[in-house]
Amino acid sequence: MPLQKGSENCITDVSGVLVGHKTLYEKLNDDETICTGVTAILPHPRNLFYEKVRAGCHVINGYGKTSGLVQIEELGLIESPIMLTNTLSVGPVMEGTVTYMLKQNKEIGDAAGTLNVLVGECNDSYLSSMRLQAIKPAHAIEAIENAKGRSAEQGAVGAGKGMVCFGYKGGIGTASRIVTSADEKYTVGCLVLSNFGKSDDALFTSFPKKKKNPNNTDGSIIMIIATDAPLYDRQLKRMAKRTAAGLGRTGSHFDNGSGDIAIAFSTANTYPHNANAHLHTIAALRDDNQAMNQLFQAVVEATEEAIINSLKYAETTIGQRGRTIEKAPL
Amino acid sequence: MPLQKGSENCITDVSGVLVGHKTLYEKLNDDETICTGVTAILPHPRNLFYEKVRAGCHVINGYGKTSGLVQIEELGLIESPIMLTNTLSVGPVMEGTVTYMLKQNKEIGDAAGTLNVLVGECNDSYLSSMRLQAIKPAHAIEAIENAKGRSAEQGAVGAGKGMVCFGYKGGIGTASRIVTSADEKYTVGCLVLSNFGKSDDALFTSFPKKKKNPNNTDGSIIMIIATDAPLYDRQLKRMAKRTAAGLGRTGSHFDNGSGDIAIAFSTANTYPHNANAHLHTIAALRDDNQAMNQLFQAVVEATEEAIINSLKYAETTIGQRGRTIEKAPL
Amino acid sequence: MPLQKGSENCITDVSGVLVGHKTLYEKLNDDETICTGVTAILPHPRNLFYEKVRAGCHVINGYGKTSGLVQIEELGLIESPIMLTNTLSVGPVMEGTVTYMLKQNKEIGDAAGTLNVLVGECNDSYLSSMRLQAIKPAHAIEAIENAKGRSAEQGAVGAGKGMVCFGYKGGIGTASRIVTSADEKYTVGCLVLSNFGKSDDALFTSFPKKKKNPNNTDGSIIMIIATDAPLYDRQLKRMAKRTAAGLGRTGSHFDNGSGDIAIAFSTANTYPHNANAHLHTIAALRDDNQAMNQLFQAVVEATEEAIINSLKYAETTIGQRGRTIEKAPL
Amino acid sequence: MPLQKGSENCITDVSGVLVGHKTLYEKLNDDETICTGVTAILPHPRNLFYEKVRAGCHVINGYGKTSGLVQIEELGLIESPIMLTNTLSVGPVMEGTVTYMLKQNKEIGDAAGTLNVLVGECNDSYLSSMRLQAIKPAHAIEAIENAKGRSAEQGAVGAGKGMVCFGYKGGIGTASRIVTSADEKYTVGCLVLSNFGKSDDALFTSFPKKKKNPNNTDGSIIMIIATDAPLYDRQLKRMAKRTAAGLGRTGSHFDNGSGDIAIAFSTANTYPHNANAHLHTIAALRDDNQAMNQLFQAVVEATEEAIINSLKYAETTIGQRGRTIEKAPL
Repeated sequence: MPLQKGSENCITDVSGVLVGHKTLYEKLNDDETICTGVTAILPHPRNLFYEKVRAGCHVINGYGKTSGLVQIEELGLIESPIMLTNTLSVGPVMEGTVTYMLKQNKEIGDAAGTLNVLVGECNDSYLSSMRLQAIKPAHAIEAIENAKGRSAEQGAVGAGKGMVCFGYKGGIGTASRIVTSADEKYTVGCLVLSNFGKSDDALFTSFPKKKKNPNNTDGSIIMIIATDAPLYDRQLKRMAKRTAAGLGRTGSHFDNGSGDIAIAFSTANTYPHNANAHLHTIAALRDDNQAMNQLFQAVVEATEEAIINSLKYAETTIGQRGRTIEKAPL
Repeated sequence: MPLQKGSENCITDVSGVLVGHKTLYEKLNDDETICTGVTAILPHPRNLFYEKVRAGCHVINGYGKTSGLVQIEELGLIESPIMLTNTLSVGPVMEGTVTYMLKQNKEIGDAAGTLNVLVGECNDSYLSSMRLQAIKPAHAIEAIENAKGRSAEQGAVGAGKGMVCFGYKGGIGTASRIVTSADEKYTVGCLVLSNFGKSDDALFTSFPKKKKNPNNTDGSIIMIIATDAPLYDRQLKRMAKRTAAGLGRTGSHFDNGSGDIAIAFSTANTYPHNANAHLHTIAALRDDNQAMNQLFQAVVEATEEAIINSLKYAETTIGQRGRTIEKAPL
Repeated sequence: MPLQKGSENCITDVSGVLVGHKTLYEKLNDDETICTGVTAILPHPRNLFYEKVRAGCHVINGYGKTSGLVQIEELGLIESPIMLTNTLSVGPVMEGTVTYMLKQNKEIGDAAGTLNVLVGECNDSYLSSMRLQAIKPAHAIEAIENAKGRSAEQGAVGAGKGMVCFGYKGGIGTASRIVTSADEKYTVGCLVLSNFGKSDDALFTSFPKKKKNPNNTDGSIIMIIATDAPLYDRQLKRMAKRTAAGLGRTGSHFDNGSGDIAIAFSTANTYPHNANAHLHTIAALRDDNQAMNQLFQAVVEATEEAIINSLKYAETTIGQRGRTIEKAPL
Repeated sequence: MPLQKGSENCITDVSGVLVGHKTLYEKLNDDETICTGVTAILPHPRNLFYEKVRAGCHVINGYGKTSGLVQIEELGLIESPIMLTNTLSVGPVMEGTVTYMLKQNKEIGDAAGTLNVLVGECNDSYLSSMRLQAIKPAHAIEAIENAKGRSAEQGAVGAGKGMVCFGYKGGIGTASRIVTSADEKYTVGCLVLSNFGKSDDALFTSFPKKKKNPNNTDGSIIMIIATDAPLYDRQLKRMAKRTAAGLGRTGSHFDNGSGDIAIAFSTANTYPHNANAHLHTIAALRDDNQAMNQLFQAVVEATEEAIINSLKYAETTIGQRGRTIEKAPL
């Protein structure tokens, strides 16, 4: 039985989560158009370095350049905004995010040790003149500063500006679900950056025109899962893995050239950077609690709908060399 | 666009693959019924120890007791039949398979080193009196000896005898797909042991009656992928991962208590146990070859249909304590 | 600075841990000798199924048949004795352990779901006529029933009876270390089943005679780490990984044919099989606590010494075909 | 028996491998000193994007920010220089490397798809004013352009300029070993960026003065393994894993805050970016070939010695706030 949607059907339904975009769109000449951007997801509005969130990740298909996963695997924590951008701009976005965090925290890189930054990416080179390396570190900072806690913009915005999904305009999409168990109510939100698929792969509709994936490679998708359910990092890795079912339901076969990557975090049980106590106490859901399966279901449903929404809320976009990607007839 | 099915829509469409079942079904008294079995999948009809096949595996959800995966991960090879049975019978099935292989190969455990045996399992304790440990090593040997290369029996047979899927009778299911690329034609086959899901999770049909999963835990599914496409072990791991999309399409959320495990092998490029040559030469598909994405699609489609077939070809079964699981209205 | 040893320098210094052996040794004729056994490590003396312990595992080299790791990876729990035996006897030892647990727990395989059993192995076929499959399920039960909480026997005993290490007699070895941090005192114990290496690889001594590894394959080592430090399963996986440094220090290169596998568990923060509460609360060491690095050091030192002890406490053993493996001159 | 060293005992003994450094050293004022740099390892002198090398990687401890590993895991290939720098400069080094590759290859980011860049790091914030983000993209390009195929500079140079190891000056170290098997001769080289350990952990010497690790966190080590032996990517991952034994032998316990990461590549069997053929043929060593164990031994020995060399060839260095790290008495 499908779960109930959150009040705004948005990742920001998870209390505290913020989303910000910085979109770059400029036709430079007949050949070259900048059609790209940066998106930032902040797990909470406070200091992320000093109040880390528990997290897990999962690589469905690793033809991707996402950075920052190594430390999530080891420590199960996120300590910076989660950034999304185009494939060749992971470097400057990482740099801008580091600069932002250094400014916010005088002790990073000195008394407080170092910083792990997360950047996911998809390839927008069909529409955007990606070789121009138009994204600068300052754009990452702008995306973070633009973050707000309600009604994240969807479609051809931020990192989604130049993305293509099922042959139509893709990009940023989001959705949320509510899990109710006994006296508890939990929210699960998903935000995707969609950039994969041929039109006749789509299972959620029957597109009137057959369109191939115009990307040189097979595209990619980054899926961010947020929840307020109290989960360990091991359980959040389990949540991240369930995106594969949601992605599969839309029609993806996890194509060879697709970087299909999921990151999941919980806003419950934050972890202080410094603490005097030797021990850290955490209350988490039992794995065999009935809420756990519903949380998994929520990931599947929210991921599937977030992908559909990334098409639904996108708009026809003209990119480099006059290339046009239409809005999907949804 | 959906791919073409193989001639028998069966894992044995991959030339050389054999499937054998040994079914145990006996009502002992009002309380106790043996309703279980063993299924064997042989990658080829020759000596598997001396002519190993390349393989990869993937654990979607690890609430399972499948044994033998550690060595597949390290060496990328299978050197024994792949066995399926119930959760508490992995031990005797492993023992019987070892005995079979020792008899066939006088040098194993002596001059030729040791042997890795593969056993997957699902929990059939709703229908079968699993605590009786009815499966004996000899049953594993019978399943292997029953193996034949055409028209594998499906439904409530072999290891599938006591399994339950989407609230209806599940068990063994199989399907196959053909991939055509340039002058090449490859076959992908899938055989599943299905034992998961509530009836209202099913996406492939709308069941008239709502049935919950009667298992104490959430069930499991083992998915075996066979192909004659020439692939490395790394690529076969990629194939195994695509079962997650096929499983997700049927409606699974990879529930907490479900051991969802996939093993993929190729009958091309077998690997001799002993060789004088220092080097081993192998020709494999390039990852960026267009056939690769079609092979991934074939895994997704064959997995989805094999699950549906495991219901379609099952029959209403009466187990312990008079418990009855109906054939699905498909 | 090396850490202090535990009172008995034994894995049983971790309060509650028990070790039991069942040794089989019989010369059948000039050719055949049974020279093998089973060893059981019980994390605590109570009901392991109903009071599970947190655990992590790590495969250093996966040329091995250890079973039960899949579920540890997913759930981070151990719910049965940890069993060690020879390579071809994983099946019967698994079966015997299942029988033992079924007898102890009337609900397993029925109302209480299923059971995950752990069996590690090394290849003792140089000394023992392994093809005879001499280990029976009952031997596993005997090993469990022999378990006691003090002064575990070492050397050519239990699963170690037929093992060979650095060309000399190896087998079971154990050691322990104490970590003191602020007001806390933690114990780390290691028990190994050693079966690897050529005599001139050894770094801890200079053996007077050069001896090759007589195994057909390169041998193996199973390393079990116990601690009373309060750690999550993720942290216990980190503990398991540190055995690689201890093993490397003895002179191992993690040879191709060696199944080098580690399992770590904590006796703190046990996990009830059933619970009414939705949430489970756990207090664990912070990863950045100074005790963590000392715990890692304790794993390295205890592993290294446990390997040395497996030689030190072994005795010259005569196996099949009159083959003799000498006690190391240590 | 220890293996023979290569002619220069350097990673560049593997034919084709090049190493380049760019060192930044400037005292800005009494408080601030730039004492950092970039090191580039090129697997061969030709176009790396069009002629990729097979590779594997292994994370021993993941408290690190190394980027680019996701795609190595999926495809088993390296298509860019391997870059090393300080923790907060992964972004600009990635950006500079992308710029270099875009300039060299007009089709990347357009007709030829995207590019995966590898950047490893350690934390040099004890000596260097890391918060100043002194490394710019151009420095990465300089390091690449400085690469040469003989006698790589060691010690306080390139990315090693500000690193500290066992309480003494660490940084870049290298070593190599020769494996001879039948008629074949293979070379294994290792280059490390060392930044871990307290002086009394060292097992390779007894330092006269006890020095603690002055890093705020526990440091890190990046280990690059090169070989001309014909190996698959799976086998190269196995090679990468053996660095753990070499690292353990020096005295490391893989401390909590240490990013201990290994990347291994083979210069044999390069992989063309584009190919008309559907199949790719590769000849690789059999895993059970005796050369394989020797290659593993070569990794262990070369890693251990490369770490020692990183101290041996370093020099006393004065960093920010007048902090001085002495040359080790080796």
